[in-house]
Amino acid sequence: MTLETLARNRSCDGWHLRCRHRSATLACDMTFAVYLPPQAAHGARLPVLYWLSGLTCTDENFMQKAGAHRLAAELGLILVAPDTSPRGDGVPGDPDGAWDFGHGAGFYLNATQAPWATHYRMHDYVVHELPALVEANFPASAARGIAGHSMGGHGALVCALRNPGHYRSVSAFAPICAPSDCPWGEKAFTRYLGPDRAGWAAWDASLLLADAPERLPLLVDQGEADSFLATQLRPERLRAAAEAAGHPLTLRLHAEYDHSYYFIASFIDAHLRHHAAALAG
Amino acid sequence: MTLETLARNRSCDGWHLRCRHRSATLACDMTFAVYLPPQAAHGARLPVLYWLSGLTCTDENFMQKAGAHRLAAELGLILVAPDTSPRGDGVPGDPDGAWDFGHGAGFYLNATQAPWATHYRMHDYVVHELPALVEANFPASAARGIAGHSMGGHGALVCALRNPGHYRSVSAFAPICAPSDCPWGEKAFTRYLGPDRAGWAAWDASLLLADAPERLPLLVDQGEADSFLATQLRPERLRAAAEAAGHPLTLRLHAEYDHSYYFIASFIDAHLRHHAAALAG
Repeated sequence: MTLETLARNRSCDGWHLRCRHRSATLACDMTFAVYLPPQAAHGARLPVLYWLSGLTCTDENFMQKAGAHRLAAELGLILVAPDTSPRGDGVPGDPDGAWDFGHGAGFYLNATQAPWATHYRMHDYVVHELPALVEANFPASAARGIAGHSMGGHGALVCALRNPGHYRSVSAFAPICAPSDCPWGEKAFTRYLGPDRAGWAAWDASLLLADAPERLPLLVDQGEADSFLATQLRPERLRAAAEAAGHPLTLRLHAEYDHSYYFIASFIDAHLRHHAAALAG
Repeated sequence: MTLETLARNRSCDGWHLRCRHRSATLACDMTFAVYLPPQAAHGARLPVLYWLSGLTCTDENFMQKAGAHRLAAELGLILVAPDTSPRGDGVPGDPDGAWDFGHGAGFYLNATQAPWATHYRMHDYVVHELPALVEANFPASAARGIAGHSMGGHGALVCALRNPGHYRSVSAFAPICAPSDCPWGEKAFTRYLGPDRAGWAAWDASLLLADAPERLPLLVDQGEADSFLATQLRPERLRAAAEAAGHPLTLRLHAEYDHSYYFIASFIDAHLRHHAAALAG
């Protein structure tokens, strides 16, 4: 697997890199970002936190806006931010050019329906191909945490719930909690997975909780002034599912915070510490 | 002066606001951003750090990318980020649509030449109109610091050097140090100030240092891998001028850092502490 470095920026005594590679899983070129803390220069193999961004984002939003490098440098945590979908001229996007499906909106699942199934396999990319690439090319250990925002917050929960043993920690900011039952999720699942809702449960975090083979604690932060809260995010569904299943969930509601990166930057340090504690040793 | 709030985001227990107002100085509508730390809700009048951004930026870049809210919240520092030029349909921009002159490139001076002199009076806007607006509408004291990046780093130096007593602290990231003698500056000064170089010295930080009536210490950080270092920024000119004038300058060179916001975010905490110390009490 050849990795092309598109850009390098010194940041908080470490390095931020943008890398491009041919993805076999997605059948297209993909760009992702890595933050290597200063400890990476000293030969140690370091734990990795994978960050999944939300609708319309690329690998760049989290690295530029979350303010995560400072504490990651202190904690010795590698950060990896993939793109939010396959991209490129050969990759079909939303037929109407909408921003909530297709390019920038892969929903971190494996599509089963034409024409999406060829490229839209972000789950396998994020869970398997990308970590293999990261662990082969950077001083990364196999200690993995996963986190994300909105569509990516849900993606992080699903990646952890579907892959017991693969992650040691998981957290989310303002995740879509019940995609089978909200407009963004229903639109995406109908197209990527087909209209039969029986196939949706395997990609819905709230529905996966009942039979989760591993009870990895979930850390979720949610702003109460988030304009998507009631219609798209629905954290009450995740809370009810966690309570019914006896799954450990810390759901923190924050008065007056919204859906923006200002919210993420306000609480990113707590998430980094949560992951670093679980990934240590 | 009527202030319209365009957006409000809770951030680090404080508030980020985007505000629009009619600027009498610039004869156009202007948007600026404010970060109010949590202490602003408790009745205290707080010191203000004005941040001047670089070419192509708006009020948004610094607030989104510098990661400054976290420590400003701790230090009780208000942050204010104006736009980088007058804007709008009635404001002439670069005749060729270039990004280094006109819209997004006001150079924080008062233009004397037609057609620029009508609107391009960013110096008076930043030094007088904006602080008056901020101090009338927010719990801001008259304790002011000023900082900036690139074109805005130079702008901060010039604002401080031209206005003794108006600022208690000044700092810059990768400033254009000698605009009279670099391509960006020569293009801008020729148009805004006219071809007679005798009029340029009053807007050039390195040339202002000789006769500065106040010896406010300058803090400057510069990345050694900055692609604009040799042709546009030329910190050796500032160092020589400070040495000749006996002006206190701390110029720190950082190996491998570039011109990006990753560089700013890496060292913003040190600048915030520098300003907070000078602005306290």
